[in-house]
Amino acid sequence: MRKYAIGLDFGTNSCRSLIVDLSNGSELASYVFSYPSGHAGILLDSKEPNLARQNPEDYIKGIKETIKNSILEAREKFSHFTSENIIGIGIDTTGSSPMPVNNEGNPLCFLSEFKNNLNAMVWLWKDHTGHSEAAQITELAKRMHPEYLNKIGGTYSSEWFWSKVLHCYNTDPEVFNAAESFVEICDWIPAILTGETHPDKIKRSICAAGHKAMYNDNWGGLPNREFLSALSPALANLRDKLYEKAIPSDQLAGKLSNTWAQDLGLKPGIAIAVGAFDAHMGAVGTGIKPGTLVKILGTSTCDIMVSPHEKKLSDIPGVCGIVDGSVMPGYFGIEAGQSAVGDIFLWFVNNLVPEKYGKSVDEKFENLAEEAKKQKPAEHGLLALDWNNGNRTILVDVRLSGLIIGQTLHTEAHEIYRALIESTAFGALTIINRIEEYGVSVKEIVNCGGLASKSPFLMQIYADITNRPMKVSKSKQTPALGAAIFGAVAAGKEISGFSSILDAQNAITGTKETFEPNPSNHLVYKKLYALYKQLHDAFGTEDWSGKMQNVMKDLLKIRDQQRKKE
Amino acid sequence: MRKYAIGLDFGTNSCRSLIVDLSNGSELASYVFSYPSGHAGILLDSKEPNLARQNPEDYIKGIKETIKNSILEAREKFSHFTSENIIGIGIDTTGSSPMPVNNEGNPLCFLSEFKNNLNAMVWLWKDHTGHSEAAQITELAKRMHPEYLNKIGGTYSSEWFWSKVLHCYNTDPEVFNAAESFVEICDWIPAILTGETHPDKIKRSICAAGHKAMYNDNWGGLPNREFLSALSPALANLRDKLYEKAIPSDQLAGKLSNTWAQDLGLKPGIAIAVGAFDAHMGAVGTGIKPGTLVKILGTSTCDIMVSPHEKKLSDIPGVCGIVDGSVMPGYFGIEAGQSAVGDIFLWFVNNLVPEKYGKSVDEKFENLAEEAKKQKPAEHGLLALDWNNGNRTILVDVRLSGLIIGQTLHTEAHEIYRALIESTAFGALTIINRIEEYGVSVKEIVNCGGLASKSPFLMQIYADITNRPMKVSKSKQTPALGAAIFGAVAAGKEISGFSSILDAQNAITGTKETFEPNPSNHLVYKKLYALYKQLHDAFGTEDWSGKMQNVMKDLLKIRDQQRKKE
Repeated sequence: MRKYAIGLDFGTNSCRSLIVDLSNGSELASYVFSYPSGHAGILLDSKEPNLARQNPEDYIKGIKETIKNSILEAREKFSHFTSENIIGIGIDTTGSSPMPVNNEGNPLCFLSEFKNNLNAMVWLWKDHTGHSEAAQITELAKRMHPEYLNKIGGTYSSEWFWSKVLHCYNTDPEVFNAAESFVEICDWIPAILTGETHPDKIKRSICAAGHKAMYNDNWGGLPNREFLSALSPALANLRDKLYEKAIPSDQLAGKLSNTWAQDLGLKPGIAIAVGAFDAHMGAVGTGIKPGTLVKILGTSTCDIMVSPHEKKLSDIPGVCGIVDGSVMPGYFGIEAGQSAVGDIFLWFVNNLVPEKYGKSVDEKFENLAEEAKKQKPAEHGLLALDWNNGNRTILVDVRLSGLIIGQTLHTEAHEIYRALIESTAFGALTIINRIEEYGVSVKEIVNCGGLASKSPFLMQIYADITNRPMKVSKSKQTPALGAAIFGAVAAGKEISGFSSILDAQNAITGTKETFEPNPSNHLVYKKLYALYKQLHDAFGTEDWSGKMQNVMKDLLKIRDQQRKKE
Repeated sequence: MRKYAIGLDFGTNSCRSLIVDLSNGSELASYVFSYPSGHAGILLDSKEPNLARQNPEDYIKGIKETIKNSILEAREKFSHFTSENIIGIGIDTTGSSPMPVNNEGNPLCFLSEFKNNLNAMVWLWKDHTGHSEAAQITELAKRMHPEYLNKIGGTYSSEWFWSKVLHCYNTDPEVFNAAESFVEICDWIPAILTGETHPDKIKRSICAAGHKAMYNDNWGGLPNREFLSALSPALANLRDKLYEKAIPSDQLAGKLSNTWAQDLGLKPGIAIAVGAFDAHMGAVGTGIKPGTLVKILGTSTCDIMVSPHEKKLSDIPGVCGIVDGSVMPGYFGIEAGQSAVGDIFLWFVNNLVPEKYGKSVDEKFENLAEEAKKQKPAEHGLLALDWNNGNRTILVDVRLSGLIIGQTLHTEAHEIYRALIESTAFGALTIINRIEEYGVSVKEIVNCGGLASKSPFLMQIYADITNRPMKVSKSKQTPALGAAIFGAVAAGKEISGFSSILDAQNAITGTKETFEPNPSNHLVYKKLYALYKQLHDAFGTEDWSGKMQNVMKDLLKIRDQQRKKE
């Protein structure tokens, strides 16, 4: 009898269900639901460009819509399929995306008194309203508890739990005080599926807690009362109401409630795994193992590695997090990332690409790549910094911005497009270098996410710039696939047949193609990277001091050499 | 009896005739001819982005087409007009735009053996192929004759006569050796109208010679043989064949030949004034006097001032030139400029503005300005350097390029458009500051050229950034108007009634409107200018050394403050 699991993946603009055949990893059906609220699912505020919120109602609609439709599709396409044999559901989401809830675990924005209050909604991962709180937290931790920062790259981010919660307290105490708890959506969604949403009962993900809330078993879980009090007594009081223990996603969040089972057409009581972030589950869906760097290339990028408990692992400055069990139990999860990758390309195409490249966004992307591909590296004479949304790794600084240099009166849109892709590859290389400098060797790179499967042009540039082969995952929906793996493993060996995550990965994951680096392109990119690093350090670090005059001249020189080549 | 003069203005992409009523300056008729060769009149080479040439055939066609048609138009519109009463023609052109000619003064490209050779054409002002020759000339002059450089801003430019001529010798000796002389087109066009084109007989403009060929009566005209020999003996030999004396444009180049008179429908023997560059004649057409800075805002920008002989005038480092009589006799002409202004906006609109701003270039410009106008200064968070075509003043360096900083994922095209306009205003302010630092006080700024009359939005930003009123010339075609003034004055007082250029200016020129600076906008722009200057010095000067980390952070801070203002 074949068995199946569902992966539920909640992204920035939409969510997806994926039904996986656990005998061979084949993906039977999947269905995507675009969030109806706001701008592509994001609630914005024109006066506060740092704000990004979501409506949790969208998630509930998304669960129903996507699971029902993917079951319908699987049933239609595969005679062997029956929803009776779905044994578990895994859930991955964006994060840190916390939300204030009342004592029943209901989002405050569901209550009439907070109905249109953006602060009572989900504070989406890319909300940066708490940037001054983040600086305050970093400052305080440096003085009181430097160990809190060592595992999260040395700087606490405005994207993370405590910055958001403290900013809520500072700017909207009414919402803060009405909240019985703040819950990451990766914890809240599993909770509603189990029917047990009381904040005390919600199982909390070690992935979210460890990477975003400074949780660590070494110091007794969340940051201590004294530290939080120094930020605000209100935070210390909140701590008491949050949670004692966070756990990995091979564990059960609970079992599917009767109500939800009926609604979705599933068997009641099947496993609901503890949730985790999309990148971490995506790494599992990509087949992560020690030595493998998984790059999840989407609107932003996550870089994930694992390191086994038995191996000594230093802290890595500027790397977002090192958390025991955040990717899979028994391994330290290492998380790095770029704040915007696909988002930069989409910004460019939506705002700065004329219709001569095509009418639709897809046409424009295609023709930009087509034209850009005809050029040799550096032939455009351009260099960009990939910081339109700040820099997550290795600078951990949202107060940065984009930069393009080298434009002439002949620079065309596809040349800038190429320079933007290159800038993200230089950003990727900077992360790889940092991780290796601290003793974690990158033996293999496997890419997944939309950009990896959709843009061979981008993958080739990444290979050329990093001088490493770029493998591409065979699945196009690795977070959902990883989530399904967790759903299956959480059901237990008796039911799923899998004794561990690695065991399930062997049966389910794999790669499909590899882009090999071109050595002569790499030589040119080495020169450009030196200039990128100069700009990176100059604009991004306090310590840098020096000259800049070489940058434009070197770019022109390299350009002219490249143009003269046959 | 009313008298008239014709101004013939040869621009980068087209030429124009203007018929002026000398009794009151009214512009009776004008006609524009777009050069048919190459890309909008410019011959390019895809392998050599620095190359820009023109076909002199286009000028000949342009003279005929524009004069005949403007006469037709004037005749139709004004009963008082008769071409019999046209008393002179003045000619302005781009420059330095030299051309190799044979011993009859015919362009080498008219000869069958050099027909398709780009080096036998006009080397257009914006041709930068001679950039390494320019560096060599600067280097040598610093050692042998620093005084040669003091009058031209301290650096010899790749846009100028000797760089181009030496580059021709270095890369195409066949063309160089076949040339009896190299003639600026501002000298060649008057010469053909007089019918006397033998290189020995061509009257040479002090404006071209002084600003671009290091000519100065103080050292006996052109650079001496010894200096030129050190560059190449070929240049020293060329010197012997060039000219001894260069003269201002109130002088006669000669009289209109019978052949041309017949062809154009004009009286033979009328005055043909010595030519000069468009900016210098434009300054006269704008009503320049001591204390007035005339800004000619076009594809590039020229800034012109005059200083009377009796006043002590220091050399001004980085300012393109100080030449006795180059604007009008009796005054030192001071020339500065920006290598690209309108060209940057046109580049942006042609390459990076989607159709949601409109279908045509004009519609796009209009809607970009409309949207950009709604913002407060710095609200876009952007800053740009206006160096897409290098920097003429005060850095005198073509090996520079554009830079844009501050982009987020929300930055829109009209915001970048505004930042580009601002960057050119910051560039303008840098020039004003430099001129005043060296003791020449700017008491009034009068703008002319296409951008001045077409873009009130741009003029207001210039007023706000410089904190000075921006006056706009009443004429939209000041170079042609200035040329007509010279045509009239060259005819002599007996015929024209004018005893001097100033005398003619009083009758003919004037301003129509003034943009006053907004003090609160200026305060914000002062902060942005400090950052512009930091980037300017860092990327543009050898001496600068320092930190850069503040730039993005300050931009974000100023932006956030501005956005919070009501």
